[in-house]
Amino acid sequence: MESLKIAVIGGGSSYTPELIEGIINVQDILNVSEIWLVDIPEGQEKLSVIENLSKRMVEKAKCPVKIIATLDRRDAIKGAKFIVTQIRVGQLKMRRNDEYISIKNGVIGQETTGSGGFMKALRTIPVMLDICRDIKELAPDAWLLNFTNPAGIITEAVLKHSDVKVVGLCNNPINFYKKFARTYNVDMKDVSINFTGINHLIWITDLYVKGRSKIEDILKGKSDSYEAKNIPSFGWESEFLQSLRAIPCGYHKYYYQTNQVLKEQLKQYRGNETRADQVQKVEKELFEIYKNPNLNEKPEALEQRGGAYYSEAAINIIKSIHLDTKEIHTLNVRNNGAISCLPNDVSIEVNCVVESHQITPLQVKETAPQIRGLMQVVKAYEELTVEAAVTGNRGTALQALTLHPLIPSFDRAKKIFDEMLEVNEQYLPLFNC
Amino acid sequence: MESLKIAVIGGGSSYTPELIEGIINVQDILNVSEIWLVDIPEGQEKLSVIENLSKRMVEKAKCPVKIIATLDRRDAIKGAKFIVTQIRVGQLKMRRNDEYISIKNGVIGQETTGSGGFMKALRTIPVMLDICRDIKELAPDAWLLNFTNPAGIITEAVLKHSDVKVVGLCNNPINFYKKFARTYNVDMKDVSINFTGINHLIWITDLYVKGRSKIEDILKGKSDSYEAKNIPSFGWESEFLQSLRAIPCGYHKYYYQTNQVLKEQLKQYRGNETRADQVQKVEKELFEIYKNPNLNEKPEALEQRGGAYYSEAAINIIKSIHLDTKEIHTLNVRNNGAISCLPNDVSIEVNCVVESHQITPLQVKETAPQIRGLMQVVKAYEELTVEAAVTGNRGTALQALTLHPLIPSFDRAKKIFDEMLEVNEQYLPLFNC
Amino acid sequence: MESLKIAVIGGGSSYTPELIEGIINVQDILNVSEIWLVDIPEGQEKLSVIENLSKRMVEKAKCPVKIIATLDRRDAIKGAKFIVTQIRVGQLKMRRNDEYISIKNGVIGQETTGSGGFMKALRTIPVMLDICRDIKELAPDAWLLNFTNPAGIITEAVLKHSDVKVVGLCNNPINFYKKFARTYNVDMKDVSINFTGINHLIWITDLYVKGRSKIEDILKGKSDSYEAKNIPSFGWESEFLQSLRAIPCGYHKYYYQTNQVLKEQLKQYRGNETRADQVQKVEKELFEIYKNPNLNEKPEALEQRGGAYYSEAAINIIKSIHLDTKEIHTLNVRNNGAISCLPNDVSIEVNCVVESHQITPLQVKETAPQIRGLMQVVKAYEELTVEAAVTGNRGTALQALTLHPLIPSFDRAKKIFDEMLEVNEQYLPLFNC
Amino acid sequence: MESLKIAVIGGGSSYTPELIEGIINVQDILNVSEIWLVDIPEGQEKLSVIENLSKRMVEKAKCPVKIIATLDRRDAIKGAKFIVTQIRVGQLKMRRNDEYISIKNGVIGQETTGSGGFMKALRTIPVMLDICRDIKELAPDAWLLNFTNPAGIITEAVLKHSDVKVVGLCNNPINFYKKFARTYNVDMKDVSINFTGINHLIWITDLYVKGRSKIEDILKGKSDSYEAKNIPSFGWESEFLQSLRAIPCGYHKYYYQTNQVLKEQLKQYRGNETRADQVQKVEKELFEIYKNPNLNEKPEALEQRGGAYYSEAAINIIKSIHLDTKEIHTLNVRNNGAISCLPNDVSIEVNCVVESHQITPLQVKETAPQIRGLMQVVKAYEELTVEAAVTGNRGTALQALTLHPLIPSFDRAKKIFDEMLEVNEQYLPLFNC
Repeated sequence: MESLKIAVIGGGSSYTPELIEGIINVQDILNVSEIWLVDIPEGQEKLSVIENLSKRMVEKAKCPVKIIATLDRRDAIKGAKFIVTQIRVGQLKMRRNDEYISIKNGVIGQETTGSGGFMKALRTIPVMLDICRDIKELAPDAWLLNFTNPAGIITEAVLKHSDVKVVGLCNNPINFYKKFARTYNVDMKDVSINFTGINHLIWITDLYVKGRSKIEDILKGKSDSYEAKNIPSFGWESEFLQSLRAIPCGYHKYYYQTNQVLKEQLKQYRGNETRADQVQKVEKELFEIYKNPNLNEKPEALEQRGGAYYSEAAINIIKSIHLDTKEIHTLNVRNNGAISCLPNDVSIEVNCVVESHQITPLQVKETAPQIRGLMQVVKAYEELTVEAAVTGNRGTALQALTLHPLIPSFDRAKKIFDEMLEVNEQYLPLFNC
Repeated sequence: MESLKIAVIGGGSSYTPELIEGIINVQDILNVSEIWLVDIPEGQEKLSVIENLSKRMVEKAKCPVKIIATLDRRDAIKGAKFIVTQIRVGQLKMRRNDEYISIKNGVIGQETTGSGGFMKALRTIPVMLDICRDIKELAPDAWLLNFTNPAGIITEAVLKHSDVKVVGLCNNPINFYKKFARTYNVDMKDVSINFTGINHLIWITDLYVKGRSKIEDILKGKSDSYEAKNIPSFGWESEFLQSLRAIPCGYHKYYYQTNQVLKEQLKQYRGNETRADQVQKVEKELFEIYKNPNLNEKPEALEQRGGAYYSEAAINIIKSIHLDTKEIHTLNVRNNGAISCLPNDVSIEVNCVVESHQITPLQVKETAPQIRGLMQVVKAYEELTVEAAVTGNRGTALQALTLHPLIPSFDRAKKIFDEMLEVNEQYLPLFNC
Repeated sequence: MESLKIAVIGGGSSYTPELIEGIINVQDILNVSEIWLVDIPEGQEKLSVIENLSKRMVEKAKCPVKIIATLDRRDAIKGAKFIVTQIRVGQLKMRRNDEYISIKNGVIGQETTGSGGFMKALRTIPVMLDICRDIKELAPDAWLLNFTNPAGIITEAVLKHSDVKVVGLCNNPINFYKKFARTYNVDMKDVSINFTGINHLIWITDLYVKGRSKIEDILKGKSDSYEAKNIPSFGWESEFLQSLRAIPCGYHKYYYQTNQVLKEQLKQYRGNETRADQVQKVEKELFEIYKNPNLNEKPEALEQRGGAYYSEAAINIIKSIHLDTKEIHTLNVRNNGAISCLPNDVSIEVNCVVESHQITPLQVKETAPQIRGLMQVVKAYEELTVEAAVTGNRGTALQALTLHPLIPSFDRAKKIFDEMLEVNEQYLPLFNC
Repeated sequence: MESLKIAVIGGGSSYTPELIEGIINVQDILNVSEIWLVDIPEGQEKLSVIENLSKRMVEKAKCPVKIIATLDRRDAIKGAKFIVTQIRVGQLKMRRNDEYISIKNGVIGQETTGSGGFMKALRTIPVMLDICRDIKELAPDAWLLNFTNPAGIITEAVLKHSDVKVVGLCNNPINFYKKFARTYNVDMKDVSINFTGINHLIWITDLYVKGRSKIEDILKGKSDSYEAKNIPSFGWESEFLQSLRAIPCGYHKYYYQTNQVLKEQLKQYRGNETRADQVQKVEKELFEIYKNPNLNEKPEALEQRGGAYYSEAAINIIKSIHLDTKEIHTLNVRNNGAISCLPNDVSIEVNCVVESHQITPLQVKETAPQIRGLMQVVKAYEELTVEAAVTGNRGTALQALTLHPLIPSFDRAKKIFDEMLEVNEQYLPLFNC
């Protein structure tokens, strides 16, 4: 088997040790020769910490993978077969701004949903398209595995404005598989889930364990059991689930429990402890731990960071592509009619068959109105967001925000956008003209 | 030309004199022989006032139309060519409840939009389907002209659950024609408007005066000029219009200016002077005027009631059908693919060619995302509302409300629904099982 | 009212006197100031004959229209409001080749359908796109009224590869209106026809006379009554019509009665008297008549030429556009979803509302499989034909012919194409590379 | 693992030994306990021969499967997990009629395509729906694996008129996998094929061997290499393949090489040696061989019968469902939008993921016009055929035939249908009313 070069853009992320651990675990079947960790000058210190920890990890595992840290993205991309993007343009400081400006203006502030996700997309898309230009030139056959949030919007921007082979990943689906496997005490491979939706807005319309449908059990049963760690948990009422006829994901809270979430966020805002604050704190602690020269494994503490099974999802897709396994993974890909009530050219998050040369979505059955309506309006917002990011058109940006179900008016959209624009100026040169 | 029998269900409405005046004005070309005014026992007193005024009006006009008032709906329907429905199940008292319960729970309370319109639809649909069964039996070739609000939802219920020939009417479109004709000082027939949307949620995507597009003028120009009288006017910002690339209707305020409208409504609520209160007052005054035995014309005061040009819209469609004029009117009809991003079987409000035997929508070009997303989510809510009304399924009702962009959570939806259910018990027998 | 310049490309056609007569008849309401007749050098003699006859006609009618004949297309187009195209690239000689090569190879040879229409399209499309470039430069607001056959394919080429305002016309629909008006002894305006289809392949799915459906009468009744003059008449069996549940047009014979038509054509072929031969003879006779300096009216003999009511169709659409009548005409326009089982960007022939600034198709209801299948396969052939014409791709041309229901194999397609290519070399420079 | 009962309807078929061999080969992983072979009284003798051979085969293999032959279909179905249908209503005698009547009338006579396949569908569908009623009652959770031709039409009839879990199978796809695996000397699992189409009309739009696209090689290369044994081989020209941009299946010959095939068939017809005659001869010989009491294996001679790898396809799907392998197979299933230019409710033949509880088609990318047109017209014919079979409507039957690309006119359709109806009277009771 050919040896494999993997480039990780945003390699200084606190998540990277997860990925390193994942690669170590499958080294015998994947034969990874080089992992390049790329970051920007502002991230050099963190990159260095990660580089050293990674080196200690592969050494301890006696794994013949070479770890190379660099600030030169092009060196890393050249000849890579997989390019993993986990970047955070503007770093956690800008995420904090996204959250605070949103909440201050009375709307939910969240990394991927609503005005927070919108601004993150605007900062990120131009950088991602730059990366794609490099890939096109230096590794034209490579697969781009995008983890950068909002993963659906970022992936859609790449699908529409580049011809790099891209797929968007999220740990939401794998968490569901894990959760149900635990609940039913079976292997993950005995769980089959029918998803419909878009990133961070997926619904489970049916669920099978060893070929038997379990959806009715779940709809009628306990409800607080399938949450990711990094989003607040309020639980779903049984009456809600039974009338929805589907299981929502954790991010649905922002839509189905808007007032409760907002109330909670206002409290955090007043206490200077929004999710961004928490994450900053966790990150700081993590990097302290990472620096320990005796640490040569992924530390337990990383699990608090959220993003559980991110690396497993990444390794799974790398394996599937590299080994042409034709397995099913739940991924962000071009719709092409798989969800017939959405446009063909948008990104969706559904079950796909992964082959080494192509990733093909499975056809999704007709969508119930209670699911369809919300999915369509959020997708239209996402389309406008992509368009705003690549054109720098202020009007398109304002319409995107106004259309979003969490923004109550054009006035509010404008106020939020203007405040955000001010602090994001350096990241949004297109909007300065 | 054959003589014409018209039945008006809800004939005791304060709007009826408008309709009578309209019929008088076109009597020479329509040859109406009988107008039957139907109402329910609770409306008998008002019906009697309207009957007498109507008789004085036709007498004064020397118009040979016979006015017959009755509480027997079947007598009125039998042999009619047109059946006009302008009913208000639960009367203004229930409208007041719709508004107060909504506002009390922190969401917009409005006759046709949001939870108010939802509850009105639930009360009205079973009665409309009863009326349709009578029409099917007693006047199977008749056209049902539905003015009853929420007109789009009610019309969709009839389209899906009856095979009566139905068309839904609203005065929104005709008001736009009138407005632009005045603005540009031309005849209404020199104005051509491209609409897309659904009832009370229509957008003007282009506008021609004598064949020249004026949309750019409007988008850049003054904005406070195209409002109906019975909805609050806040005006649109030029930046909003230019980024929307379309002219919204008055009801869009509830979506694009949610917080401002809600603030205003809360003030009205505290002062016991919501729109329902105002209308009740206006109605009371109107009926006092109507009772005057010397009054034999439509009084000026009626214009304050809102609903301007309602009767002109009604008369226009009656004329077009009866005389097979093949004219274009903007009507609520079955989609059939005219708006390709909506399901085929829903009602839409678009330009249609009216012939005596069929009403055919004109094809609408592709819809921009900023329009598409809102239209789709509100339409999905409407589909669920129709389904809830005909099945009495509580879960469907809750999902309809939860999906509505103006309702911030499932909890709120449930609270509103339960409070409304309590006061509407007698009108919603299906939900009592 | 502004005065009107009309340019007729292919002005030397024997049909032109019809058009002149038509314009004379509506001169009081249209106020046409100039008619420019354009032709190519090879057609100069005929052009001169038509010019002189036209001048005598307007003189006799005391009509103040100026007739100008020219070989300079650009002069004619400059400032025109309507440009009528009725060109025949390669003249009747090439039409004769189309027919003979087809029939010799055992397939139907016809001006617009099958391999004959295919080759005519290939010759014509590049010329039409040249004309469109002139229009774009010299009369950017003009309407292009295309009569050139195959009208659907030519119109589709313009719709896809130019942004000139274009509409395609055929006399098939108006002939149906005339026929049914005569059959039922009513005015044409009392006849309402629901068409679905594409040019020369339209089906009547319902038919109303004064608002009453007559389709059942027609399906069960005599069948030989709705034929155009220039296509062979074989009549339809009642059992055929009743099972089709629609009335086909005359050109459907080539599909529904292929063997009978082919047998007839083989006889004509052997006798050197195919339709092209007949038309050549009729044309020769017509021009002899036209030359008569005493002739100052459209001669009776022209009616034998076929194309009845062509000029009426042309004048009607000019009137509708110029006077903004918002009337319904059956025209070739961009689909945009009006027929939902065909692609959005193809031309269809359906009822449209004609305004001065836009022509909008009416939505067509779902199509029955017996209609849908044939319409879809012929449309796919047309799409390939347009693509072949603009790219000069031989493979696309062969696939177009192979897909056509009248061509029995790829071998036959290739043989026909190669023989046609040889005699058409000068008209198909793109295919010579 | 639970033990497995399989019922084979049409168990007396000469193909059955293939299936028995297949089951023997996977017995260790499938644990089949009983194979029930069902046939009708007319087939009792053949059934008995097959029964005895099957018993000798399992005995030789020391395989603990019980073979039960019966004329009582209900006994066989009761409690089965898989029901395989390989019936031939009217036996080979009626197939011979299908071929002779077609060819005599100048059109291709073929078991599954054109008028031959049409008549076979009409005979078969009512019987299949009867079988489905039994399954619904006696084995409601069973999967129906339909091999009966025309497999696409029969499967569509079951999908539309029954709620049995059904999937249609053909050996066309597996033959392509085998062929390309041999051509490239790789394992079948290293071959990945993108199919689009409907049964016996599938196109390969791309082809990958170990993740590398090979389609260009094939399009430019030798062409006579991917034919099934039971259809005539004429080879494809390189120019044809390169312009089609896809690889057709063997049955495409009837459409792309109609005249050549017809010429060949007329020769066979005159010599009394059409495919039905050949098959009758082969069958007779096979059954002589089967009777040999010393034979206890599938004889070599069976391979001449055509249908290569039929049993492998059947065993693969049984394995996939029973063991929930989530593998990809190319199957006939409900479209649901996977091929977006076909209706949702028709059967298509595409790659599907097979799980124990559901079979889901993979989304197919947009179809090129040269493929789309033929696929759409044949599918519309199939829809009409299903409708004719379940309604007995003569008009629908005539329209189905008339629409078929191989039938040149309504007259011919009627003549063929009437002649076929006469000899098929006993099998088509619905058409006798």
